[in-house]
Amino acid sequence: MAPLASWLDIDPKSHFSIYNLPFGIISTSGESTPHVAVAIGDYALDLHAFAQQNGFSALSIIQPHQQVFSQPTLNGFAALGRPMHRVVREYLQSVLLKDGPFPDAFEKNKQLQKAALKPIEICKMHLPMFINDYTDFYAGLNHAYNVGVLFRGPQNALQPNYKHLPVGYHGRASSVVVSGTPIKRPNGQILANPTAEVKEPIFSESKKLDIELELGCFVCKPSSLGDPVRIADAPQHLFGIVLLNDWSARDIQAWEYVPLGPFNSKNFGTTISPWVVLMDALEPFAADGITNDTQVLPYLNEKGPKSHYSIDLSVSLTTASGNTSNIGKTTAKNLLFSFPQMLAHHTIGGCPFNVGDLLGSGTISGESKSEKGCLLEQTDNGKTEISLEGGEKRKFLENGDQVTITGCCGTEDGALVGFGECTGKIEPAVKISF
Amino acid sequence: MAPLASWLDIDPKSHFSIYNLPFGIISTSGESTPHVAVAIGDYALDLHAFAQQNGFSALSIIQPHQQVFSQPTLNGFAALGRPMHRVVREYLQSVLLKDGPFPDAFEKNKQLQKAALKPIEICKMHLPMFINDYTDFYAGLNHAYNVGVLFRGPQNALQPNYKHLPVGYHGRASSVVVSGTPIKRPNGQILANPTAEVKEPIFSESKKLDIELELGCFVCKPSSLGDPVRIADAPQHLFGIVLLNDWSARDIQAWEYVPLGPFNSKNFGTTISPWVVLMDALEPFAADGITNDTQVLPYLNEKGPKSHYSIDLSVSLTTASGNTSNIGKTTAKNLLFSFPQMLAHHTIGGCPFNVGDLLGSGTISGESKSEKGCLLEQTDNGKTEISLEGGEKRKFLENGDQVTITGCCGTEDGALVGFGECTGKIEPAVKISF
Repeated sequence: MAPLASWLDIDPKSHFSIYNLPFGIISTSGESTPHVAVAIGDYALDLHAFAQQNGFSALSIIQPHQQVFSQPTLNGFAALGRPMHRVVREYLQSVLLKDGPFPDAFEKNKQLQKAALKPIEICKMHLPMFINDYTDFYAGLNHAYNVGVLFRGPQNALQPNYKHLPVGYHGRASSVVVSGTPIKRPNGQILANPTAEVKEPIFSESKKLDIELELGCFVCKPSSLGDPVRIADAPQHLFGIVLLNDWSARDIQAWEYVPLGPFNSKNFGTTISPWVVLMDALEPFAADGITNDTQVLPYLNEKGPKSHYSIDLSVSLTTASGNTSNIGKTTAKNLLFSFPQMLAHHTIGGCPFNVGDLLGSGTISGESKSEKGCLLEQTDNGKTEISLEGGEKRKFLENGDQVTITGCCGTEDGALVGFGECTGKIEPAVKISF
Repeated sequence: MAPLASWLDIDPKSHFSIYNLPFGIISTSGESTPHVAVAIGDYALDLHAFAQQNGFSALSIIQPHQQVFSQPTLNGFAALGRPMHRVVREYLQSVLLKDGPFPDAFEKNKQLQKAALKPIEICKMHLPMFINDYTDFYAGLNHAYNVGVLFRGPQNALQPNYKHLPVGYHGRASSVVVSGTPIKRPNGQILANPTAEVKEPIFSESKKLDIELELGCFVCKPSSLGDPVRIADAPQHLFGIVLLNDWSARDIQAWEYVPLGPFNSKNFGTTISPWVVLMDALEPFAADGITNDTQVLPYLNEKGPKSHYSIDLSVSLTTASGNTSNIGKTTAKNLLFSFPQMLAHHTIGGCPFNVGDLLGSGTISGESKSEKGCLLEQTDNGKTEISLEGGEKRKFLENGDQVTITGCCGTEDGALVGFGECTGKIEPAVKISF
């Protein structure tokens, strides 16, 4: 049993142990304006109500800033900086602790408990941050290699630049949605006959709709045009991590992406989990990523503590007939570049960042067949099928399929630091006539 | 002489004739909070002051919305929609008109003139819109062809998809800056020896810093996730147009861009002109673009009025020694796809838009040598030099070079509809030690 225990009744298998305390944006039927909360067991601790009713009475440093908990995004709280995130999270841990140092603040304050503890199941979750810019990287080495083998063979699987820099592209911020938002199958241009000499596109719904298992990392500290973030400073710019599903239409992508990269094949929806797990909560699970056998340039050379995380990741698919199958398990250690490296690279030429900007890791795959983070890899681009529970099979996603990513650090009862779920269900394409 | 004349003294060669009335965001030493203005001749008509002092007394429809003129961006005004843009612009024309229908509103109101007419030279210009997402297209056919010839030869200059869809990529909204903002030469990874068998990058400042002559178009109507904007509806979603310089680091781009497209080679700065010329002001200059000899799919097929514009574009370079040379002249008709086509394509898979989102046209080049919109084309990627005034030469930009784009519709004295300037000066790269 974990040494820290709460006076609140928390399922020992909960992702939201007292060791976690991820931040999110909730609304309820009684309080329909979205505002800040922290997840603890089966409850959302409503920090708007908590602050209003003097829950922070023993933490004077936060008092001039308490309005951040009434805002409809976490941007205001994030902008207070990592030292403040730490003291707020540790204070919340202390008031949730059984026989903690401030029993009057919360444990013995029934009125505050009634006002601020909401069953998570009655909370509507919102996008946690206002995202001005979203960038998606490609740092999952095994994924990049597997996809490269599919399209170029094993000799040229990785492009020459791949191990020298975290390859990435600017994503579409407006299409990032919170877990649970339905995803419509996109229409677009695809090739009816991709191997024909003359390339003639048709208008069609995507027939190769795929997932991408990723992490997302939010930035909490702005940087100015022309001012690079040094790699040693980068960790202070990172707020927290979410699960991310970068839905992808492989047939639209194959036709559109040369020479400027993925566009409509990605911008119809990117789903993130609603609770942002703070960097401090992840620190005990810091780990090495994939060793880079290429010497990176000094601006990417990390000298500080480990900057990957041992997060167990899992993807399940629930079909329209109700069968749920696990279709992949891997670990977030399968990344070649870390978020500090991504931020250092992204800003080295002077690109500015705002609080709330999102970095995606790229698809995370392990080396074995059961560890592949997208269907493109699992089915060799639709050449084979994967078998699901109930005898169903899939090459790519069908309408009505619901994909759920989960992620969790640790295995000890009562001490899990998890992400909850990142889920979305595929709806039929829009019918369009001209 | 143009039929419409103002009681205000306006230089007949001014870009900001009474036929134009572009919208921008200004501040002054006396009113340091950025707010909305309209350019007329050598004046900024301060709409915050104009509205506060009852300048809109004869236009009741705008009165419930007048707070949009006190906002620090044009997003609020843009969101009122094209019919409202039209009545506001026409009303402002009418009060600026000599012997107009409402002489008491402005022509005879000295107090309001004193409060609302500010010499443009004392105004600080700000980014006109809050930009949540920026997309840059590649719709300049001659540019795409010329660049394709450089890298792949004339047989394969255009990719198979090029004429079927407006190729584009997601840009970086945070790096869009207003005209006049200095641009630091970016550092990054480049290949010391690009033709070597083994590709080894070095850390360096860019040695191939370039411009891209483009138009930008702002969106004024939101669209939701999963809901395509039909091409017939697209013009109602467009607010107005600016000049755009998509600064590009060609050496960083060459190394980084495969397979996900341009990234740090573009996100160190994109400059736009400060005054947004409304679509209504451009309508008299509607023109055909480049004829597409490929039949596009129905969702891209425009049936309405012409949707390109006859805008004369010009690029000049002023060196550190003060010599100014024209380095390119062309017309905005040199585009294969129009902004309505770009928006229809961008949303066909369901990508959502917010008010203020920016679309870049891609580099605009004509067919002749004097009409090329970037140095990459003009110097065959640095193989030749261009000659400047004063005997200077350039392959790419040097520190201290200032590049200025101008654009104007029409030639008639007193009736020009111009964009003013889009300018930026190159500062030395940041010195970084590790």
